[in-house]
Amino acid sequence: MSNIVSQQILLKRYPTGAPTEQDFSAVETPIAELGDGEVLNRTIYLSLDPYMRGRMSDRASYASPVALGSVMVGSTVSQVVKSNHSQFSVGDFVVGYDGWQSYAIAKGETLRKLDPHQLPLSYALGITGMPGMTAYFALLDIGKPKEGETIVVSAASGAVGAVVGQLAKIKNCRAVGIVGSDEKCEYLVNELGFDACINRKTQDLNSALQAACPNGIDIYVDHTAGPILEAVLQQINLGARIPLVGLVSQYNAKTLPPGPNLMPLLVKRALIKGFLVGDYQERHAEFIEDMSQWLREGKLKYKEDKVKGLENAIHAFIGLLEGHNFGKLIVQISDDPSHK
Amino acid sequence: MSNIVSQQILLKRYPTGAPTEQDFSAVETPIAELGDGEVLNRTIYLSLDPYMRGRMSDRASYASPVALGSVMVGSTVSQVVKSNHSQFSVGDFVVGYDGWQSYAIAKGETLRKLDPHQLPLSYALGITGMPGMTAYFALLDIGKPKEGETIVVSAASGAVGAVVGQLAKIKNCRAVGIVGSDEKCEYLVNELGFDACINRKTQDLNSALQAACPNGIDIYVDHTAGPILEAVLQQINLGARIPLVGLVSQYNAKTLPPGPNLMPLLVKRALIKGFLVGDYQERHAEFIEDMSQWLREGKLKYKEDKVKGLENAIHAFIGLLEGHNFGKLIVQISDDPSHK
Repeated sequence: MSNIVSQQILLKRYPTGAPTEQDFSAVETPIAELGDGEVLNRTIYLSLDPYMRGRMSDRASYASPVALGSVMVGSTVSQVVKSNHSQFSVGDFVVGYDGWQSYAIAKGETLRKLDPHQLPLSYALGITGMPGMTAYFALLDIGKPKEGETIVVSAASGAVGAVVGQLAKIKNCRAVGIVGSDEKCEYLVNELGFDACINRKTQDLNSALQAACPNGIDIYVDHTAGPILEAVLQQINLGARIPLVGLVSQYNAKTLPPGPNLMPLLVKRALIKGFLVGDYQERHAEFIEDMSQWLREGKLKYKEDKVKGLENAIHAFIGLLEGHNFGKLIVQISDDPSHK
Repeated sequence: MSNIVSQQILLKRYPTGAPTEQDFSAVETPIAELGDGEVLNRTIYLSLDPYMRGRMSDRASYASPVALGSVMVGSTVSQVVKSNHSQFSVGDFVVGYDGWQSYAIAKGETLRKLDPHQLPLSYALGITGMPGMTAYFALLDIGKPKEGETIVVSAASGAVGAVVGQLAKIKNCRAVGIVGSDEKCEYLVNELGFDACINRKTQDLNSALQAACPNGIDIYVDHTAGPILEAVLQQINLGARIPLVGLVSQYNAKTLPPGPNLMPLLVKRALIKGFLVGDYQERHAEFIEDMSQWLREGKLKYKEDKVKGLENAIHAFIGLLEGHNFGKLIVQISDDPSHK
């Protein structure tokens, strides 16, 4: 037995509606011996993402639900502490899927090595990680933007949305964000170069979309479904494309609400297509190459919302589902030795 | 002035809900002189189709609404009676868009000549006309069926649905129809070779779909939206494709009802895409070539529901929206001299 103890947050029960602190429990678990091909990781950063709510449910979703009593899942950046795998050495930095815990044993195949000299380590959980990759392929592969088109994105200051808008600008399109505060709007327009932004809490969606999209909407990267999708559908152009990357408006719903009327889809010969980033794993290199270049050229900016301490993960996650974060939500669980 | 009088059915007012006889009026109008490039047609067959309900509304749709007081629109097969167009001679048979009237003046560019020796003239309004072409491109171009997949179609004994199912069989897929009577089910399975059929009026849709589609649903050609789409979404496979060709369940609705929850689309990375046959005009030849061959080989069967007399068009159209027709609904307005 190792004498290392892992701080862990377990899923205690499936939440009804919005998750609460009582749906989780914090425990300390001694780390077992390493098996063949396994690596012991010290978690530095944990990514918190809306999809996690979908895993906290026995309703059909992408993947099997998190089993009650087990560690909450999540993407992580870690440093290798012990290794029984030929490709990883003590001190290596890796991105993996170790979940809400301070130490984890992982199979080597689930890890990818990170170069701490290229980009900040935590970027691998955001702009060059799963959220950035979602933005990249949802917009470019399903949306297929053409110069001069109008792209709308909801949850636009989030980890995916902020990248969607910046990629739209790189592709010479009009970028329109929908967010929940004036502060986020100002950030998108003044810092990230969005052409327009709508505060869905203070503005009437229909008239604000009309004003922000004088030539109609060609692509809508949808994170929310619900009333935003309904309003967007009223203003789509012929042949519009709607990659559906999330249903944040519904993750906490006790029963699934009805969706939008699909008449505009028929009239405009538009498409809605469900998207899962995991389907694009074989194109990871292409994504990293483009994103690294755009980051180096200063064409992409990136904001993180860092929370310190695993003990604050639950509170931060509950806030994420209500849109309280501003930038990519990351929990820092231990020191980042690569950080100046 | 010509001394020919056209019997016409005009749209008198936009129906609220289901159309009634009172929404139309029958008039007799003397035919004007032919202009340059125009042709005078005697209507033989008029096609009645569900999309017409969409044109009887000032709500946004594909095309501008039929103006109140003008002749109801519709595809027609006619014989040329007079011609001021070099490409058409008296006696020619043509397919065009002359509407609900016994004689019509048409621009030559709106007409296409038919060979009465190839296929029955009325086929140009159905299996080798707009409905057949809808089935062909919706299934093959959006659905892209792969051998062994399961294809479900609603309004399956109608002009589009019956072709969808038969094309599915030609492509070595499993064809499952949804209709409104046992008689139609028997016809689809026994005459057209569908693998299974569901009577939506007597069977529970969810369990019947489960039984009819043991391997899930890969393509659903949707004519109806509403509860059938909702039920189908529960059983779609990964990467399912749903061409949306009509919204029959809503054409008579006074306000647009909510649509289905889109969670299954996200989970299964499936797509819904609006379809309009007019977008495929440049591929007409390809369609005619395939369909003619399959008809000659006996791989496609075709059933018409022929009503005699323009005066019965209104009643037949009202019934069409309620699913009373059995086969492609055609109004015969005058004698077909090509008919043996």
